[in-house]
Amino acid sequence: MADIHEQTINTIRILAADMVQQANSGHPGAPMGMAPLAYALYGNALRMNPADPDWADRDRFILSSGHASALLYSLLHLYGFGLTLDDLKQFRQWGSKTPGHPEHGLTAGVEATAGPLGQGVASAVGFAIAETMLAAHFNREGFPVVDHRTWAVCGDGCMMEGISSEAASLAGTLKLSKLTLIYDDNEISIEGNTDIAFREDVPARFAAYGWNVIRVKDGNDWAQVLEALEASKASDRPTLVVCPTTIGFGAGEKEGTPGVHGEPLGADILLATARRLGMPDEPFTVSDAVYENCRKAGEKGAEKEKAWQTMFEAYRKAYPELAEEWDQWFSGEISDDVALNDSLWAFEGKMATRATSGEMINRLAALLPNLVGGSADLAPSNKTNIKKGGDYSAENRAGRNLHFGVREHAMAAICNGIALHGGLRVFCGTFFVFSDYMKHAMRLSAIMKLPVTYVLTHDSIGVGEDGMTHEPIEQLTGLRATPDLLVFRPADGKETAAGWLTALTYGLPTALILSRQGLPQYENSGSGAMKGGYILKDSQKATPDVILMASGSEVEQALKAGELLAAQGVDARVVSMPCMELFERQSPEYREQVLPAAVRARVSVEAGATMPWYKYVGLDGEAIGIDHYGASAPAGRLFKEFGFTAENVCAAALRVLKK
Amino acid sequence: MADIHEQTINTIRILAADMVQQANSGHPGAPMGMAPLAYALYGNALRMNPADPDWADRDRFILSSGHASALLYSLLHLYGFGLTLDDLKQFRQWGSKTPGHPEHGLTAGVEATAGPLGQGVASAVGFAIAETMLAAHFNREGFPVVDHRTWAVCGDGCMMEGISSEAASLAGTLKLSKLTLIYDDNEISIEGNTDIAFREDVPARFAAYGWNVIRVKDGNDWAQVLEALEASKASDRPTLVVCPTTIGFGAGEKEGTPGVHGEPLGADILLATARRLGMPDEPFTVSDAVYENCRKAGEKGAEKEKAWQTMFEAYRKAYPELAEEWDQWFSGEISDDVALNDSLWAFEGKMATRATSGEMINRLAALLPNLVGGSADLAPSNKTNIKKGGDYSAENRAGRNLHFGVREHAMAAICNGIALHGGLRVFCGTFFVFSDYMKHAMRLSAIMKLPVTYVLTHDSIGVGEDGMTHEPIEQLTGLRATPDLLVFRPADGKETAAGWLTALTYGLPTALILSRQGLPQYENSGSGAMKGGYILKDSQKATPDVILMASGSEVEQALKAGELLAAQGVDARVVSMPCMELFERQSPEYREQVLPAAVRARVSVEAGATMPWYKYVGLDGEAIGIDHYGASAPAGRLFKEFGFTAENVCAAALRVLKK
Repeated sequence: MADIHEQTINTIRILAADMVQQANSGHPGAPMGMAPLAYALYGNALRMNPADPDWADRDRFILSSGHASALLYSLLHLYGFGLTLDDLKQFRQWGSKTPGHPEHGLTAGVEATAGPLGQGVASAVGFAIAETMLAAHFNREGFPVVDHRTWAVCGDGCMMEGISSEAASLAGTLKLSKLTLIYDDNEISIEGNTDIAFREDVPARFAAYGWNVIRVKDGNDWAQVLEALEASKASDRPTLVVCPTTIGFGAGEKEGTPGVHGEPLGADILLATARRLGMPDEPFTVSDAVYENCRKAGEKGAEKEKAWQTMFEAYRKAYPELAEEWDQWFSGEISDDVALNDSLWAFEGKMATRATSGEMINRLAALLPNLVGGSADLAPSNKTNIKKGGDYSAENRAGRNLHFGVREHAMAAICNGIALHGGLRVFCGTFFVFSDYMKHAMRLSAIMKLPVTYVLTHDSIGVGEDGMTHEPIEQLTGLRATPDLLVFRPADGKETAAGWLTALTYGLPTALILSRQGLPQYENSGSGAMKGGYILKDSQKATPDVILMASGSEVEQALKAGELLAAQGVDARVVSMPCMELFERQSPEYREQVLPAAVRARVSVEAGATMPWYKYVGLDGEAIGIDHYGASAPAGRLFKEFGFTAENVCAAALRVLKK
Repeated sequence: MADIHEQTINTIRILAADMVQQANSGHPGAPMGMAPLAYALYGNALRMNPADPDWADRDRFILSSGHASALLYSLLHLYGFGLTLDDLKQFRQWGSKTPGHPEHGLTAGVEATAGPLGQGVASAVGFAIAETMLAAHFNREGFPVVDHRTWAVCGDGCMMEGISSEAASLAGTLKLSKLTLIYDDNEISIEGNTDIAFREDVPARFAAYGWNVIRVKDGNDWAQVLEALEASKASDRPTLVVCPTTIGFGAGEKEGTPGVHGEPLGADILLATARRLGMPDEPFTVSDAVYENCRKAGEKGAEKEKAWQTMFEAYRKAYPELAEEWDQWFSGEISDDVALNDSLWAFEGKMATRATSGEMINRLAALLPNLVGGSADLAPSNKTNIKKGGDYSAENRAGRNLHFGVREHAMAAICNGIALHGGLRVFCGTFFVFSDYMKHAMRLSAIMKLPVTYVLTHDSIGVGEDGMTHEPIEQLTGLRATPDLLVFRPADGKETAAGWLTALTYGLPTALILSRQGLPQYENSGSGAMKGGYILKDSQKATPDVILMASGSEVEQALKAGELLAAQGVDARVVSMPCMELFERQSPEYREQVLPAAVRARVSVEAGATMPWYKYVGLDGEAIGIDHYGASAPAGRLFKEFGFTAENVCAAALRVLKK
């Protein structure tokens, strides 16, 4: 009979296969191949306490190959994170805690929502960065209150994705020694052997990034894997543990084939597999010995947390101010210093909103010492630099300015990792048009409701001479359509402040869309912007003749058009709409007050695709926008050539009034 | 005095700096650093004929670091591609041929629109793949009619982007020996020395991908660079030429600093630089000797083309059928065999549109031997396999099925390269939700109006058990807002045929959005779908009581809702709207006929974000959609839980009728 270790490993395997079989949907192959490395982690290497999955100084484990969710659920059941056998039986069913891909927040012990390949590798780099930043800030001699590792598992798919390359290169540069990435090297992809598309030497590539590389001879031998994991702890660089595994291990003729990746084994093969691995015929069976073995790992973890709690109590006495700061940082709340601070709202003279944002970052950084961030090599343009923050690097973990390099996609996923870790507030910047490069990581910010702030400067044709490749047109629409992402396009400094305060308090990711070019400061702008849309200049009459709507830089043309209309006896209301998502979340009464249903003469103006505005202008109004690519010329010329003038807005208003 | 080579190099440098100075905007640093390698290429290595920039067997040169556009424009002027000194003086101005970033189609000699970093590296891989495919098909003994190289230049920014890693890994796997990538290694990024974010060993990384790596000792020495370029021609693998250069070479105190990257040198520094390099004070001055030197390179190129033309004439006699096929393939036209072929439209029984698309691919592949494509490791799911096409690989250049690996972003950019090369028609597939990963390359397809077809399967909550991470919600909106991209979401087989035929004939990139789940075949669907929106089932009366609109899988609920309404005496028209972009391009009369302005009772139903539909339902209608993330459960359950039922559509219609 197999020893208790092998029994546990085979239980993990068969539980995963049972779940997929029961659901008649899912991925049995990867869990069966990865069970030994998972056992090395959960049974041994991982610093965790299943009874307190949110323990601040736990090791973080990120399953980047999220399709192997059945593996994670098996572990969370066996090690006592709260998932029951019934939960496992509800795999992939409506309302269950065991969805097709792991969802953070839904299931205790799931550190990150996963599935889109490569994201977890990059997020793991973010977790590891957060650990070093917090350690630099909080640790004191004899009090290593932040001292944990980040472990991630990925497969060939994650390794092929560019985002993981970006993240690994940065991790090497930053010498993130407390990061271990375990590569489930099974040589099988959906279309066949990885030879068809992926012949590179992965270990050599990671060595080129500056990683420590450890090759496990037999990834089916948990003890060998454990040895490698333990060895990684001694490295002064991030470690790649290359684990040769066999997809669908134990599944007879299906073992080692693409066919075992994404569909149930079938009842017959599953039964044969169970027998081959010495497991009972009955699905979802776990022996007492296996439970007992897993319980012991949990107990060891609980002892570790207890020791840490004792240390932290002593730390609280020795460093009460730091401990208080700890509580503050990990609460995610902001103080009244920030929320009620009038000086945050003060701006004078013509300024680009990227500049007002840069000013906000520095005002906020002075009040919020856990605010960190950076840019994908565009900090001088994005105005993301925290002036007194220092540069974060391998040599300076106390720096608050992150240099992500030209790696937008990894940057966003790394910020997800930093936000998931807890303790820090994070922002990142690039040119708005390159939000495309990181869109999917932004989607994951939104899916997980992470308060990552995206500083997206150089909006629309205001970019000017750099031309069409650098002028965002459709990006505003694409991000607005993304659920649970706030898209905030401020018109001036006060609206920028409103955007930043929303980003800090609303509990959702926020994309700030900022101008390259200078914009005026408006007298009547202000906190009303936090409602998403508000009356910036009202009509004379209670019910206006026409409503002009705009966001960002085009608020200027809308206001001027209002004046032109007034000169012609037309009574216009000007609505500034920096954030449609917030406006939609206001009461119906408020929305009716701003945009009365009775007024059908409506014109919107925004230097982006018109699509989002039809919800407000309807069939009778007009949406002035740009539904084609931009051009290369000074920005002022482009605004005129493409019709963004007060005269044009005025003419449109007169047209809709005639209808 | 410097020799003629150095004179030419310095002329390239100063012309570029002059352009930036004149425009008061742009990037002088990279052109000044790269001038020697550019001279090695244009003066010597490149097989080109400036008098015939579209010569089919020319070498392709892709400037991936598109911000160095002034370098390319200097070259295109000096070597006689048609740009005048006046064009150079109009750099970055409205309507000029010299926009801020190079635009393909606008300026002769620009092989690809560039600027977004990393894209050019991946597109270059596509060019190189196309060359091997065409060579395998057309070349005969003694007639190497396809025999050219692909050269690309990239900087640190391109190297940091994940897309270039993806592409380089695939290029190594595919042993694309006729590809040379020149790495402008200047160690400077916008935020500072590359040390802050990029310490990896790039040459070692490329060696790990299976590339031949050549290090040039001094990238300022054009002869050394040329030696490396020539050596690359002998390799059996793709070659990386590492060229250490100095950004802003010659610019005195600005040389080698981030400050020289993206702004004019300033008149004083420019003058001092010109003098230091032995150039005249007067801007935009080119000596006769330099023109003469460049003219000679052009003449050599013209002779090469002449020799090729002679060979091709002989080839035409020896292989008339192949020559005819050549003409056909390079024309980009489709024959009546395809355009008027009724059998393409025949489908029976319930089928997923990913399956009808798979059927179309195979029907079309039989008629169009130059149709090639593949998937990002999801071919069995995307149904993209050409059954008798064979697998393209290092060992089989005649294969028509490309295995891109799990590399969506590079895949799309590679397809851009294949389309740009000419001679082939290309498609690529992945899950729709992962279109996010490749969005920016899709944008470049659209900017360049390249007929790349995107096969995006597993739409919306029809994905089912894989859950929210795999269920596209906002992607449909984001792509629809993208100018010059057709987004086609067919409801059945005939509409899928319409989508594919549109993709082949319309001259724009097309995204086919396809269902995972089976859908019925409709009697009245058909070529009307090529108008984007059409009446699938009309009302009894000329003017319907209510209009129901839908696309894709939800056409079924709309039709059923129409029946439910009929039973209640409500006369509904059902409009199928597979492609809004095409519908918008129809005449106002046609659009009025389908959606009469007088009918305000309108309901749309589509399992995606509602945003695009308000243009058609207005303020009085209702848009049924999904403005939140999906969930993990069997698809049928999800459609019911999220309100996509005929009953719900019917109820909405009754509500809007009551308004």
